[in-house]
Amino acid sequence: MSVNGPVAIILAAGHGKRMKSEKAKVLHEVCGRPMIRYVVDAARGAGAKTIIVVVGYAADQVLQALSGEPDIQFAFQTEQLGTGHAAKVCRPLLDGYEGPVMILVGDEPLLRPEPLADLFERQAQEQAACLLGTAKVHDPMGFGRILRDSAGRFLRIVEERDCTPEERAIREVNPSCYVFELPVLWEALERIGTSNAQNEYYLTDAPERLAAMGRKVIALNVLRGDDILGVNTRQHLAQADKVMQGRIQDHWMTEGVTIVDPLNTYIDGRATIGPDTVIYPFTVISGSVQIGARCRIGPLAHLRDGSVLEDGVEVGAFVEISRSSLATGTVARHLAYLGNASVGRDVNIGAGTITANFDGTAKSETRIGERAFVGSGSIMVAPVTIGEGAVVGAGAVITRGTEVPAGQTVVGVPARAIGERKPSS
Amino acid sequence: MSVNGPVAIILAAGHGKRMKSEKAKVLHEVCGRPMIRYVVDAARGAGAKTIIVVVGYAADQVLQALSGEPDIQFAFQTEQLGTGHAAKVCRPLLDGYEGPVMILVGDEPLLRPEPLADLFERQAQEQAACLLGTAKVHDPMGFGRILRDSAGRFLRIVEERDCTPEERAIREVNPSCYVFELPVLWEALERIGTSNAQNEYYLTDAPERLAAMGRKVIALNVLRGDDILGVNTRQHLAQADKVMQGRIQDHWMTEGVTIVDPLNTYIDGRATIGPDTVIYPFTVISGSVQIGARCRIGPLAHLRDGSVLEDGVEVGAFVEISRSSLATGTVARHLAYLGNASVGRDVNIGAGTITANFDGTAKSETRIGERAFVGSGSIMVAPVTIGEGAVVGAGAVITRGTEVPAGQTVVGVPARAIGERKPSS
Amino acid sequence: MSVNGPVAIILAAGHGKRMKSEKAKVLHEVCGRPMIRYVVDAARGAGAKTIIVVVGYAADQVLQALSGEPDIQFAFQTEQLGTGHAAKVCRPLLDGYEGPVMILVGDEPLLRPEPLADLFERQAQEQAACLLGTAKVHDPMGFGRILRDSAGRFLRIVEERDCTPEERAIREVNPSCYVFELPVLWEALERIGTSNAQNEYYLTDAPERLAAMGRKVIALNVLRGDDILGVNTRQHLAQADKVMQGRIQDHWMTEGVTIVDPLNTYIDGRATIGPDTVIYPFTVISGSVQIGARCRIGPLAHLRDGSVLEDGVEVGAFVEISRSSLATGTVARHLAYLGNASVGRDVNIGAGTITANFDGTAKSETRIGERAFVGSGSIMVAPVTIGEGAVVGAGAVITRGTEVPAGQTVVGVPARAIGERKPSS
Repeated sequence: MSVNGPVAIILAAGHGKRMKSEKAKVLHEVCGRPMIRYVVDAARGAGAKTIIVVVGYAADQVLQALSGEPDIQFAFQTEQLGTGHAAKVCRPLLDGYEGPVMILVGDEPLLRPEPLADLFERQAQEQAACLLGTAKVHDPMGFGRILRDSAGRFLRIVEERDCTPEERAIREVNPSCYVFELPVLWEALERIGTSNAQNEYYLTDAPERLAAMGRKVIALNVLRGDDILGVNTRQHLAQADKVMQGRIQDHWMTEGVTIVDPLNTYIDGRATIGPDTVIYPFTVISGSVQIGARCRIGPLAHLRDGSVLEDGVEVGAFVEISRSSLATGTVARHLAYLGNASVGRDVNIGAGTITANFDGTAKSETRIGERAFVGSGSIMVAPVTIGEGAVVGAGAVITRGTEVPAGQTVVGVPARAIGERKPSS
Repeated sequence: MSVNGPVAIILAAGHGKRMKSEKAKVLHEVCGRPMIRYVVDAARGAGAKTIIVVVGYAADQVLQALSGEPDIQFAFQTEQLGTGHAAKVCRPLLDGYEGPVMILVGDEPLLRPEPLADLFERQAQEQAACLLGTAKVHDPMGFGRILRDSAGRFLRIVEERDCTPEERAIREVNPSCYVFELPVLWEALERIGTSNAQNEYYLTDAPERLAAMGRKVIALNVLRGDDILGVNTRQHLAQADKVMQGRIQDHWMTEGVTIVDPLNTYIDGRATIGPDTVIYPFTVISGSVQIGARCRIGPLAHLRDGSVLEDGVEVGAFVEISRSSLATGTVARHLAYLGNASVGRDVNIGAGTITANFDGTAKSETRIGERAFVGSGSIMVAPVTIGEGAVVGAGAVITRGTEVPAGQTVVGVPARAIGERKPSS
Repeated sequence: MSVNGPVAIILAAGHGKRMKSEKAKVLHEVCGRPMIRYVVDAARGAGAKTIIVVVGYAADQVLQALSGEPDIQFAFQTEQLGTGHAAKVCRPLLDGYEGPVMILVGDEPLLRPEPLADLFERQAQEQAACLLGTAKVHDPMGFGRILRDSAGRFLRIVEERDCTPEERAIREVNPSCYVFELPVLWEALERIGTSNAQNEYYLTDAPERLAAMGRKVIALNVLRGDDILGVNTRQHLAQADKVMQGRIQDHWMTEGVTIVDPLNTYIDGRATIGPDTVIYPFTVISGSVQIGARCRIGPLAHLRDGSVLEDGVEVGAFVEISRSSLATGTVARHLAYLGNASVGRDVNIGAGTITANFDGTAKSETRIGERAFVGSGSIMVAPVTIGEGAVVGAGAVITRGTEVPAGQTVVGVPARAIGERKPSS
């Protein structure tokens, strides 16, 4: 049975020992998501229908992280014999497949789908045996250089250690991003030897080999410098995070969101934010959070995964919102924790309000009806329900299972009803 | 009736559609204040006695934001026919006025009064028909270039789209900051046609026109690159904020304030800070806040509008102070909210202390006498008074209207007196 | 009695009036420690056995800050007569000592021990009368320039104000970091006059003087640009802090710590952090804090001096930990203050938990046994003990002196036992 094409192979078997980690390198996170996720997404976005992830070090971790996705298959590289060898271990999975295969590395989380789509498209147009995506960078250090002839045609890749001084000055580099045609790639790999210091097979030799075989090889300068950051250290990881964070914020600013101090704001790539919302400094939005239009997200706030803020919600300093929904006009201005809460419109959450949503075993919900007033320093031990327009007195502790009727006022520890809401409170 | 001169006209009628906002562009905030505020302040600081704001898009918002200021008048530009047209709509308000008029754009919030004062002064000295304030910038992209003759005299402004390659390399630019003499400006504007792609009247044509009329036109390089940032997108807004924040912090550092990590601190331009005060990272000071000398403002603190901290006050992490005064020697080291509170000298505010100052309708005051000790996790439901040297036990809830006598200790929910303060507590 | 050599003299007598401070300049802090501490540590690390600190302005403050360290002595410079004079006041303390003396300035906190050790070593090898440590910098403004002859031999130092245009372009500078041989330095200092604008003796004249006396003087380019930042303003202080913070973070990233957003994280140089620990943005680690491996330090957290987090601890937003230990697997995910607490393994600290560790006079301990569950919004008035596996109900106030038995559940204000822990809670 042949796979669906186009195919992408993502190399993710390396140890990454400079990370000094027990975790597989490609699972280290950039803006809240494992870096291989971005490479998978980029490959899919470029049109790949089958993705083969080559795993080795901490393979079980990678398998688990990418489990349950029908377009992903895994190939096992048990020995570290180079990138050429990593490609070879995919051959059984690709038995009978003829067509383009993109080969990417799993530790370049900043790859975007658009230039990869260009590579697939151009390969199809040109019927090329190999397309290399290249980038022109300010500082080429560490990368293989792209050699072209006087007509600009690709000649070969020269690794930095083999560069002449002139070659070293070349700023067009090879970030290990290819489209090869199958089955001719297998033929080329058979001819690549291990005549190098490391006794490994290098995929970087394949383009030159294919050219020598008389096949069409094209180096296409479609990548930008900030697409090709390879993560080998925690410092690189932080750099990748910063670039990605910049992309995320730039997107939302273009959509009409005010980010008062972008360098002092941290927004997960899965969040969505409506126009005219203002985000103040030192705010963290982590995970999948939906924020409506015209919200004010105060400084030093923390919005967490699964939270939904409708239009015009206000959340202030030292407030954490987790897996909760806040309807239009609701405010939580200072020091509060709302977890697993469903809060109606125009509710006031006082300073120091805490939802005790976890009892050590399970999480329970807090429901707060519209126009309720939750006094400062109150604790709601979920599950609880606060009716529409009800008032929770400052410092009240609402015990588990309580349902405060609409319009009632409750006070004390444990809270008890003292009557209907007074107009002045 | 003629207006008082000198006059400044501020162009604030544009939509700013790249902001994608329902709010008038000039009302978007930089370091806590609408950007047009800075332009108004700069014009006033330069000596303008009458300020005419030309409004159009979302005019009502701008009128409201600047209402009640007797030196400000408004002119309405209902059609967007260019900056020359924007100036023309001010003509009725200036009927009979002869003298200098400065024309500024409302979306350049970084303009400072000093160079604008230079323009007024030089115009008076030279009896020039037009003074252009120019800036030499590293990257002139997007700006009109200033053309001078071989003797350095102003020739004309060339818009970027009309530049020859040589002109494009000119780094002296026109940030739309002029002083014109009235009534000759009106004469020049009459002669400006709309022979351009947009069918609009451009103010940038006026200097050249005046020169052609034999009048004296001078381009004066008084502006710095960071004065002339024009805000057209949320990204520009964030850039302007960063520059302004740098100016604010630089001022306070020069005055003897330690800002441990300036890039991780956010200080409103209306705040004042005494010498030898130390501000730790991730602190936000918003609005008009007065901080004395030798204070310690811990990391992750939030000081809000209307707060006054006397000398030697200490405020720590996760503490928000809003419209409150803290006298000398008082400390609130962690997790607290003080709103509408008046706190005497040498008071200790325990962790988790909350003033419940808002009952859903109105805000009330909390008064805490000197040397009082407010235990951790206590809640004070305003209005309350804590006497001098009184002790509030940890977790106490002081109900509304309570007056704790001086020296008394109160505990519990609701709090009740248990005797005089013990020496050991 | 002669001192132990090698000797280092640290000049710390100046006022630093641009700091506008009542505090001695060298006591202003960089990454949590007085800047002279770094210079002392660098001198010790380079091998100095005796350190003489020359004090003058606010001498008592400096003496107190460095008191009780047997290798440190103090010399008093009561008049500010220049750096040469500052060295001279050490002469009585060095009576009879023959050997190398390093002279450093106390306001260069970024000096590292390694290049200083190089200076000592080379001086010994060469038996030089003077070794100058120099740096090549991008922007030499403000520094004296190093003049060498055509063979590269040191000629003299030229102060910037005396530079010819050619000399001004020299980028090798004198950061005031010397090793002199005693007693020949004294001889040279005797010959240095005060024929300058300030009527002061300058140490910078000594190398040239020694060369003129036929003694060997070597300028050794061992310092980097970021070693030699001299702090004269609060702006410089902030710059030094940023460089030092970068060094601290770079160290921990290399050791396998993920710092998600390095520019938005603040880590004290005395902290230690285990591999695979992740530190989220806007976290402050101040003082001596020990963090194990695989911890998650959430965003907006504050870890303070004397805290110990074992492997796998999780601390979240708006949590402050001070002088407390948290054993493996313990979590405090949101809004909590733990001070003087000793917390066992696998404890859950609920949101809003507060230890009331300070009664206005003294601090007391809170002990929490392993597997305890501390409910949200509870207050523990220290001293208290929570037994293993005990449950503190949400909103409970545990009064002073309480010992909750293992496995018990307590609730209410004040908290009382309601039975054994239920499996579901």
